[in-house]
Amino acid sequence: MTNGKLILVRHGQSVWNESNQFTGWVDVDLTDKGRGEAVAAGKLLKEQGVLPDVVYTSLLRRAITTANIALDAADRHWIPVVRNWRLNERHYGKLQGLNKAEIREQFGEEQFMEWRRSYGTPPPAIDVDNEYSQTGDPRYYNLPEVPRTECLKDVVERFVPYFTDNILPRAAKGESVMVAAHGNSLRALVKYLDKISDDDIAGLNIPTGQPLVYEIAADGSVVNPGGTYLDPEAAAAGAAAVASQGQK
Amino acid sequence: MTNGKLILVRHGQSVWNESNQFTGWVDVDLTDKGRGEAVAAGKLLKEQGVLPDVVYTSLLRRAITTANIALDAADRHWIPVVRNWRLNERHYGKLQGLNKAEIREQFGEEQFMEWRRSYGTPPPAIDVDNEYSQTGDPRYYNLPEVPRTECLKDVVERFVPYFTDNILPRAAKGESVMVAAHGNSLRALVKYLDKISDDDIAGLNIPTGQPLVYEIAADGSVVNPGGTYLDPEAAAAGAAAVASQGQK
Repeated sequence: MTNGKLILVRHGQSVWNESNQFTGWVDVDLTDKGRGEAVAAGKLLKEQGVLPDVVYTSLLRRAITTANIALDAADRHWIPVVRNWRLNERHYGKLQGLNKAEIREQFGEEQFMEWRRSYGTPPPAIDVDNEYSQTGDPRYYNLPEVPRTECLKDVVERFVPYFTDNILPRAAKGESVMVAAHGNSLRALVKYLDKISDDDIAGLNIPTGQPLVYEIAADGSVVNPGGTYLDPEAAAAGAAAVASQGQK
Repeated sequence: MTNGKLILVRHGQSVWNESNQFTGWVDVDLTDKGRGEAVAAGKLLKEQGVLPDVVYTSLLRRAITTANIALDAADRHWIPVVRNWRLNERHYGKLQGLNKAEIREQFGEEQFMEWRRSYGTPPPAIDVDNEYSQTGDPRYYNLPEVPRTECLKDVVERFVPYFTDNILPRAAKGESVMVAAHGNSLRALVKYLDKISDDDIAGLNIPTGQPLVYEIAADGSVVNPGGTYLDPEAAAAGAAAVASQGQK
């Protein structure tokens, strides 16, 4: 049997990526540049014959639209779709909506990086009546409580069990499974796949719109640790751009 | 319990609607006008508070993209998605790709209308090696045989049982179920819902991009026979435009 594949795609540039605001669970749209990244990702999939059999997305439109556009460009718009909140971006708490550069200036580099990259410490919780809170959003009706902040550890805890129960078994059976998600939900996943320590995960940055492919053996193990970017040069440049966010 | 809803949406204008070609299972894209129709449909849903809980689509991109765009405009992009070939347009056989006005001139009005509106007589079957045949298309891998032509009766027989098994029960349980599909798959469905005779269905035309809502009681029966267009005036104008297709 040929190996299955996990095809991880972080959404293209969003309106708040462009304006340098913390986004989290706020449901902002892609920019035209972001839509272009999604088209390019789909063309890469098609050119390299990496054709998803099924796609999993978060409940946020920047990931959903990225998947829609990329799959259309790859002629795979007709595959089954599964959506789940567990693929959502990390909830950024009270920082949602705030400008990254301003927060960095106001609170200093150390606090800023702790909020962005600490594994276990979440930002302060967002107030329920904050305009960027998700409490009461109908798409989360089935959650006992809608998150008001999360650290990366929280994302690992809510996403990895869903991944091992639902997504990994399909890849282990030989399917090509696309996961259209977010910077931090994909970091949580890569941490698991590549057994990255709580400390080392801080240094991992995932570029937007660059398909990252893990080959999965029938026993669920990763055949190519670290995964393989379909366009390694563009991916390296993209990761460097993510690392420098928060600079003016 | 409040009634469930079926929200039927025929895709917006496609490239071959615009060029007046028979389309069937050929997977042509929407025009910009068609994308605009999808946005307008989504805005109507939102304004009138007709919010789908789940969407069913065909495997053809003109219906899939219509659903994607309309749901994004309605802020319901995050609902579950189900795709099935049984919602596909009627397969138009050997006519796929041919110009409607030319066929009408060449074969005469009577033959033209029989191919378009006969309930039981399909057009001649398409050759397997015709460039517009779907034999070998990977999306139909699970069909014992890919259709090479269909009449409306064939569409009723392949779609209605799927509808009564999978879609109707959800509406009967009180869900709002959107069905994003095609002129003839929706005619097949409306024939069933409104108990239209094999003869009378010829006179029924469904406009593009106009949400048509059936309220469904807990016993699965239709509360509002004939359904309700959210924008009745625009729908009437659209239906008249469909009826006149094939004219130059």
